[in-house]
Amino acid sequence: MVKQDRAIRTRRTILEAAAKVFEERGYQSATIAEILGTAGVTKGALYFHFESKEQLAQGVLHEQDQRFVIPDRACKLQELADMVLLHAYRLQADPMVRAGVRLSMDQHAEGLDRSGPFLRWSHVCREQLEKAQSQGELLPHVVPSVTADVVVGTFAGVQSMSQTVSDYQDLRSRSSALLRHLFPSIAVPSVLASLDLSEQRGESVYEEIRGRLREQSPATVS
Amino acid sequence: MVKQDRAIRTRRTILEAAAKVFEERGYQSATIAEILGTAGVTKGALYFHFESKEQLAQGVLHEQDQRFVIPDRACKLQELADMVLLHAYRLQADPMVRAGVRLSMDQHAEGLDRSGPFLRWSHVCREQLEKAQSQGELLPHVVPSVTADVVVGTFAGVQSMSQTVSDYQDLRSRSSALLRHLFPSIAVPSVLASLDLSEQRGESVYEEIRGRLREQSPATVS
Repeated sequence: MVKQDRAIRTRRTILEAAAKVFEERGYQSATIAEILGTAGVTKGALYFHFESKEQLAQGVLHEQDQRFVIPDRACKLQELADMVLLHAYRLQADPMVRAGVRLSMDQHAEGLDRSGPFLRWSHVCREQLEKAQSQGELLPHVVPSVTADVVVGTFAGVQSMSQTVSDYQDLRSRSSALLRHLFPSIAVPSVLASLDLSEQRGESVYEEIRGRLREQSPATVS
Repeated sequence: MVKQDRAIRTRRTILEAAAKVFEERGYQSATIAEILGTAGVTKGALYFHFESKEQLAQGVLHEQDQRFVIPDRACKLQELADMVLLHAYRLQADPMVRAGVRLSMDQHAEGLDRSGPFLRWSHVCREQLEKAQSQGELLPHVVPSVTADVVVGTFAGVQSMSQTVSDYQDLRSRSSALLRHLFPSIAVPSVLASLDLSEQRGESVYEEIRGRLREQSPATVS
């Protein structure tokens, strides 16, 4: 168990180093040697966890999906909003999440399949919209798969614009504005009136989840 | 006049070469020597038009805004939709437009101010929304500057997702879906019912503009 803990920590150290190097240099220019140097681990340790630069990048891309599970809500569209607003909050706050999102938008990352995060997020959004639909939260014309792709694509652009014009300073207000523009086209009015799409929502969901994690296993939450 | 025509053509040749090299290599890795080689012009000609790699990139970034002016419509939201759908069509069809958009999304283009296209598009959308507002086309809560940024950011993301998952094959249907998700939140119902947000719209606007250009000056339209 202790050995396994150490392996998990080493893997995390390597991924954090990879995230840092990819973010600074771009996927194409980054080298495994730089990641090794930044991580301060042995070559053997790195290759035990990751066989190639692409595997390292896939590891970083995956990290943005991990660890934070939105608490169940009676309203499934609120859960969807919480996913988006929490992700915006974590993008501002967590370098690993930022690196993953930037990798997925790195157009010159040759040989790296960047479609993973788009497709995974699409899948998650679609499931959420289907639950909302089965509860009668959606307007009758909504096609969950089409709306899911709109939510994922639009959020990707809003974060990219926010990064470009304000280095993510305005990401929370832009994400809130995005949802206030999309949800009236998909939600029935009574649901719409009950939603919290405010820019403070992401942080409060983050604190809520951390509070729950702390209750479950105090040692793993820093 | 003939001399000026030649200068315009040379400038265009250089920009097309720059677009090609930036698209293949990314801004960071591209060199002026490669652009020279691709353009097949003299060093003197290149430096006459552009003093640096950044000026070349700014030239490419600007090209996506040029040449295509949307015809006046009675409905200003239709004009806004036409801008977006025409841009989607041109992105699929014109390598120069594609290179400009990709440059503006190139996160590793150090020293290149990429905010220009975002800010210019925001400005144009905002003006359009203000006209729509003064004609009573918008719902009362709409703030044109906020909605303009949502339109620009969301389109940027939708094109990026389309590039990643389908190499732009599905860009027209995604752009149409985007507008059908955004406009119900901003337009009064009677305007909404009159809009053409279909995926064929971009191409028909493109043909309309080319038809008009051909009438005005047949020689300049290929």
